[in-house]
Amino acid sequence: MPLLDELVRPTLLVNAKISRQNIAFMANKALLQGIRFRPHFKTHQSAAVGEWFREVGVTAITVSSVDMALYFADHGWDDITIAFPVNIRQMRAINSLAGRIRLGLLVESLESARHLQNELESPVDIWLKIDSGSGRTGLAWDDAEAISSLALTVSQSEKTRLRGLLTHAGGTYNSASPDEICQRYHDSVMRMTNLRSELWANSHGLLEVSVGDTPGCTLCSDLGQVDEIRPGNFVFYDGQMLHLGVCTPQQVAAVLVCPVVALHPQRGEVVVYGGAIHLSKDVVVENGRPHYGYIVRLHPNGEWSAPLTDARVSRLSQEHGIISLPPAELDQLHGGDWLGVIPAHICLTVAALGEYYTLDGTRITT
Amino acid sequence: MPLLDELVRPTLLVNAKISRQNIAFMANKALLQGIRFRPHFKTHQSAAVGEWFREVGVTAITVSSVDMALYFADHGWDDITIAFPVNIRQMRAINSLAGRIRLGLLVESLESARHLQNELESPVDIWLKIDSGSGRTGLAWDDAEAISSLALTVSQSEKTRLRGLLTHAGGTYNSASPDEICQRYHDSVMRMTNLRSELWANSHGLLEVSVGDTPGCTLCSDLGQVDEIRPGNFVFYDGQMLHLGVCTPQQVAAVLVCPVVALHPQRGEVVVYGGAIHLSKDVVVENGRPHYGYIVRLHPNGEWSAPLTDARVSRLSQEHGIISLPPAELDQLHGGDWLGVIPAHICLTVAALGEYYTLDGTRITT
Repeated sequence: MPLLDELVRPTLLVNAKISRQNIAFMANKALLQGIRFRPHFKTHQSAAVGEWFREVGVTAITVSSVDMALYFADHGWDDITIAFPVNIRQMRAINSLAGRIRLGLLVESLESARHLQNELESPVDIWLKIDSGSGRTGLAWDDAEAISSLALTVSQSEKTRLRGLLTHAGGTYNSASPDEICQRYHDSVMRMTNLRSELWANSHGLLEVSVGDTPGCTLCSDLGQVDEIRPGNFVFYDGQMLHLGVCTPQQVAAVLVCPVVALHPQRGEVVVYGGAIHLSKDVVVENGRPHYGYIVRLHPNGEWSAPLTDARVSRLSQEHGIISLPPAELDQLHGGDWLGVIPAHICLTVAALGEYYTLDGTRITT
Repeated sequence: MPLLDELVRPTLLVNAKISRQNIAFMANKALLQGIRFRPHFKTHQSAAVGEWFREVGVTAITVSSVDMALYFADHGWDDITIAFPVNIRQMRAINSLAGRIRLGLLVESLESARHLQNELESPVDIWLKIDSGSGRTGLAWDDAEAISSLALTVSQSEKTRLRGLLTHAGGTYNSASPDEICQRYHDSVMRMTNLRSELWANSHGLLEVSVGDTPGCTLCSDLGQVDEIRPGNFVFYDGQMLHLGVCTPQQVAAVLVCPVVALHPQRGEVVVYGGAIHLSKDVVVENGRPHYGYIVRLHPNGEWSAPLTDARVSRLSQEHGIISLPPAELDQLHGGDWLGVIPAHICLTVAALGEYYTLDGTRITT
């Protein structure tokens, strides 16, 4: 039976062939430049997809929570960085992890560093979280005094092994063009490598530099003098990446398939079963107007077309998606037909659904 | 041990006493006006909270999906309306429900009506879905010809028992003031009751009128000539309702408690563990600026303060919440402390988390 005939509700489909190509591309790029590839698993969140990374030689990973680290440690991953400021409320789980795997933690305050030094039962790697310009969190890249002082404190205990400097070059997501993405990525890398030199000059030993972000790691041919990269989104890509020109439509590996439940040809809209609880409410902003995703046509086997012109998810309620479509597309649709949505932000869609299917019908849990 | 000492990660807390007061208020209001109270269970999604409704005499409920109807039917509810355009892909589950409970379905096209008449194995109640002004879905309230024609088709089969006209007065959510909410609610009710009279004059029999929406049902003292109301959000209320003046801070029954993981006093911000995968990305728009929720202080037993002045969730990443706080609040905080967030849209937060806790530590599943 064709895949779509077996489905009845909004379902996230993953094209494993495309996803594996995306993984191979990034693994190969890092390998050729002698950089450790520590992919962020917060996008796919799945042990099964983790195996696709193992097949290309990945042994070290990034996650965004202690709970996600526990899940992947239970699935055989033994070198994990939790790329989120350490949550000291989870010391018990952190100690359990530190006792069984090589665990990397992010620290950005003396208070956190001292807390870890008092509470850790096994040593961990410490990455100083640096804000290289994105303004989310971390020590400001140009506050060398605070960074040096934190580095010194971390170095004073055997429990906290100072490994390096880590940043999320998140500014790349706010770029207007691929050129600007690479400019921002390189600015971020330069700030980090200069900071490393400065700390080296202040006798802190040689520190590694770790950078993240799918836009920069995908587009910039030279990844710079970094020791590791931590992109995550590239495993599937999404509407935001498509809009930024980071990926092509052929590299998008996941769509939410939604049954049509109502047609409004006068408004140029259809209503699908597939809403904010499936897609989240993150947006792509095009020409100042936000939307929730691009629309694709589906083949019965689950493969999908390129994004349709002038077709978007215009509005979302809890379970309703309102899709704007050109008349030629709308006229062919009936209740019960499928439409596919390339979500604005795939990480949130995966987190919202907790499962997805490959085109051969395999259910993947997270 | 105080409740907050037992928690380690972002957790949704529900004050059961406040929630029960909210339920009693709405049940009593409907009772006094002789209107059936068919609460929407898509907000709390939980069998345990359902029991709080049963205690005040509720026997009929609304849900937003076939799967949610199955869940509540399994928990003893035998009169359920699925307030979402019928998804014909789920005919098997619909037939299973129709065979065991009194099931209400929404129809807005001849195509759906005929499909049901061909495929149903047991009779169901049919509500014609009317768009009374919100522009989401349903037949336009002023297209009496199309509505009359659909009513006629539905009436022609014993499988589809025409029960009435149903609308979501969703325009109330876009109001600027409580007065405007009641104006929009009454406009919507008047369109529905006029439509009923028109269909009656055209010999369609006497149809019930069902309206939804928390803003109108909370604020308007006279609910009008309707047969049933279907509010949902009022069980907990949230940031959007608070901003609209629909509820007071004392009526808000749910907050997401989040551990502080980083402090940025120079920016007037703290970072909490609690992001888009917990809160979703729905917003409250105040003075043209969007934010993701209001901030409260927490007592160790889980009770919370009124919303803090000039304190908001300003930005969200997957797991990070960036909270703006006045210096006097910020100066008292340390890593590991708790802050509470009144989510912009509680329905999405409940759906994202899938569980919550009452203040006595009881875990509630959905």
